[in-house]
Amino acid sequence: MLKTYTYSNLDMATLARLCTRNTDSSGEISAAVNGIIQQVNEQGDEALIHLAQQFDGIRLRAIIADSAHINAQAALVPEHIKQAISVAYQNIYSFHTAQLVTEKAVETMPGVRCWRENRAIERVGLYVPGGSAILPSTLLMLGIPAKIAGCKEIVVCTPPQKDGTINSAISYVLQLLGIDNCYMVGGAQAIAAMAIGTTTIPKCSKLFGPGNRYVTQAKIAVQAQFGTAIDMPAGPSEVLVIADDSANAAFVAADLLAQAEHGADSQAVLVSNSALLIEQVNAKLEKQVALLPRKDIATKAIANSYAVLTDSLEESIDFSNAYAPEHLLLQTVTNELLIPKISNAGSVFIGHYTPESAGDYASGTNHTLPTSGFAKAYSGVSVDSFVKKITFQAITPEGLKNIGPTIETLATLEGLQAHKNAVTIRYE
Amino acid sequence: MLKTYTYSNLDMATLARLCTRNTDSSGEISAAVNGIIQQVNEQGDEALIHLAQQFDGIRLRAIIADSAHINAQAALVPEHIKQAISVAYQNIYSFHTAQLVTEKAVETMPGVRCWRENRAIERVGLYVPGGSAILPSTLLMLGIPAKIAGCKEIVVCTPPQKDGTINSAISYVLQLLGIDNCYMVGGAQAIAAMAIGTTTIPKCSKLFGPGNRYVTQAKIAVQAQFGTAIDMPAGPSEVLVIADDSANAAFVAADLLAQAEHGADSQAVLVSNSALLIEQVNAKLEKQVALLPRKDIATKAIANSYAVLTDSLEESIDFSNAYAPEHLLLQTVTNELLIPKISNAGSVFIGHYTPESAGDYASGTNHTLPTSGFAKAYSGVSVDSFVKKITFQAITPEGLKNIGPTIETLATLEGLQAHKNAVTIRYE
Repeated sequence: MLKTYTYSNLDMATLARLCTRNTDSSGEISAAVNGIIQQVNEQGDEALIHLAQQFDGIRLRAIIADSAHINAQAALVPEHIKQAISVAYQNIYSFHTAQLVTEKAVETMPGVRCWRENRAIERVGLYVPGGSAILPSTLLMLGIPAKIAGCKEIVVCTPPQKDGTINSAISYVLQLLGIDNCYMVGGAQAIAAMAIGTTTIPKCSKLFGPGNRYVTQAKIAVQAQFGTAIDMPAGPSEVLVIADDSANAAFVAADLLAQAEHGADSQAVLVSNSALLIEQVNAKLEKQVALLPRKDIATKAIANSYAVLTDSLEESIDFSNAYAPEHLLLQTVTNELLIPKISNAGSVFIGHYTPESAGDYASGTNHTLPTSGFAKAYSGVSVDSFVKKITFQAITPEGLKNIGPTIETLATLEGLQAHKNAVTIRYE
Repeated sequence: MLKTYTYSNLDMATLARLCTRNTDSSGEISAAVNGIIQQVNEQGDEALIHLAQQFDGIRLRAIIADSAHINAQAALVPEHIKQAISVAYQNIYSFHTAQLVTEKAVETMPGVRCWRENRAIERVGLYVPGGSAILPSTLLMLGIPAKIAGCKEIVVCTPPQKDGTINSAISYVLQLLGIDNCYMVGGAQAIAAMAIGTTTIPKCSKLFGPGNRYVTQAKIAVQAQFGTAIDMPAGPSEVLVIADDSANAAFVAADLLAQAEHGADSQAVLVSNSALLIEQVNAKLEKQVALLPRKDIATKAIANSYAVLTDSLEESIDFSNAYAPEHLLLQTVTNELLIPKISNAGSVFIGHYTPESAGDYASGTNHTLPTSGFAKAYSGVSVDSFVKKITFQAITPEGLKNIGPTIETLATLEGLQAHKNAVTIRYE
């Protein structure tokens, strides 16, 4: 049962509170993570072996999962799963490959030609969580754009299973992607290892991937301490559904629960201009949650969530933009009119037949998305995340005559005589 | 006189050392900056007034520079400077506006349509350094792409001059850009104020702009502590020139000095397959540096710099890619052949008549670029830096039949029953 707030009654403080998540900023996690980073920095591979034993009770025979290991594990994947992975792969590939565009040069003045070219980040590190859940979809979502971008070296860290092997579906995706740099390391120590480099694990320029709070904190810490680029900060997953009277309450409830089952700290927010719909969704939630294998988690997440009753779809969008959801679902009669009004969201799912789980696995869009309000400033992962756009300029002697006086005047204004000289000397 | 290393003699450790800059990671700056951030967080505007007095000896009458102030200052700008600013504005505008592209939708499967749309980051904060240098060009480089992106609110912080006013050229650019949120605050406290928000200064989602080591450290700190997005980490400016026998030694020397005059910690690296050219450049450096108003700074920077003698242009590019320069100049007979081999650089200047100062002011490319090796993972500022790319997907009932089984299989594989249900319930 979702606690319901009425939008027109919300004061600024309550609105701000409803839009705040991920408030657990206890120094405890940060201190533990800094300790792990220091340990990896000082002891390298030895720390990785020690920490796997300490945290996961796993005695690693090797840090690297060699190709014999990967191939043996991949062979265990049943045919129907291979087929599903293949469909997802194709869709993700075709959506992401369209993102790799060649831009035209611009002649900003006669003889002054400027353009951008993409260059792949040469070595990237992908973190694929393991432990309780296995997430081959995460490897697809990170590995495919990295391949399309043309990254020369793709490093993957993922925690081994209790028996010391890499999960079979993840192994199959590694095989599909042709990635042979896979290391059996999880947690904050995996992030530290890819940021700093160890004897076995290469130092990466940019790190990607979701994870628990330790992993997330480790990404933030290595970014600040070592200048390692990261895809984005991350928090618990979340969904916001904007629905009106046209929505099917059972569909909405199912979408909210798909988010809620991720974790007790996940948030599932319903925003509607229909009190009746909210009531109906609550009824469906109660019915559907009872049947879920992860009903304890989902129940906690729903208790942690809420509904907002608005007077109009405009108000619904206003609330959504203030919340800046990772996933935004539009299930109204006027979805097309709402799209231009969306200013902050990670990924948007339009219409009654577009469940959020489609984007998690197979529609083609990326599921690595900004949570916790970061959609105000960050995009989800795309091919762009794996390239740099380098600017180029070529000026002809004639072009320099056209642009030179401007450069000379501005360099003089800023008191940078040598900047001016670099132009003047070329006229002489 | 540049100290010269021979590429083929470099061992890995020396190569790594030559490619390392910005090594001053004293905890002193970090501690001072954290103190300032805490002060701004606790005392807001009061801290800003107090710190202006303490660090700059300026008694602020107001934090905001109102439009009367800006207009009065802008009116002081001489006509020839207005014209130069106008040319730069046009070129920067035309190059950056070409970056704003509309992408086509991709139908990844029949009935499954996916696309991306740009949305401006609503409130951005631009830092324009002041103090010893005045940098209207920085405001052009940040303000123009922010305007093109469509950012609703553009906040500018810049330190006031000793007389408590905003510099006239900066005021003129503010007027040109139509920005009326300008605050007379500099240093780490400006970064803290825009990240946290005060009574006067609005909290921004993303911060941009160069600055001294305190400003840079403050950006890194607010990113880690408050989740504020930043354009990129930054360090001292740098140039790497690849030149062969075809190069004009006087041009090369002028380009190296244009970098060197920025600061004693700037780096100007010459990479050449011609020992003769290196010798000639050294001779020109000595001659040219003596005439510079900032010769003390430039001399220190040159002492801090070096040349690398290679056997070939291929080796020159290899060294450059390892160094990952902010600015890369190609002054060889085979520039076009070298371009595809460039993997890491911020902005590239091609040919004998393309001085780096062209890109600083007026060619049209952005001068806010990754330094200190960050060009391995980061791009310079562009319109992309001011937008999010939101993904959208719309699936028809028919489309869900096509894609549904894939989603169901993968959700089951990952143990997420509610993800599967969100599809299944839509078939029923």
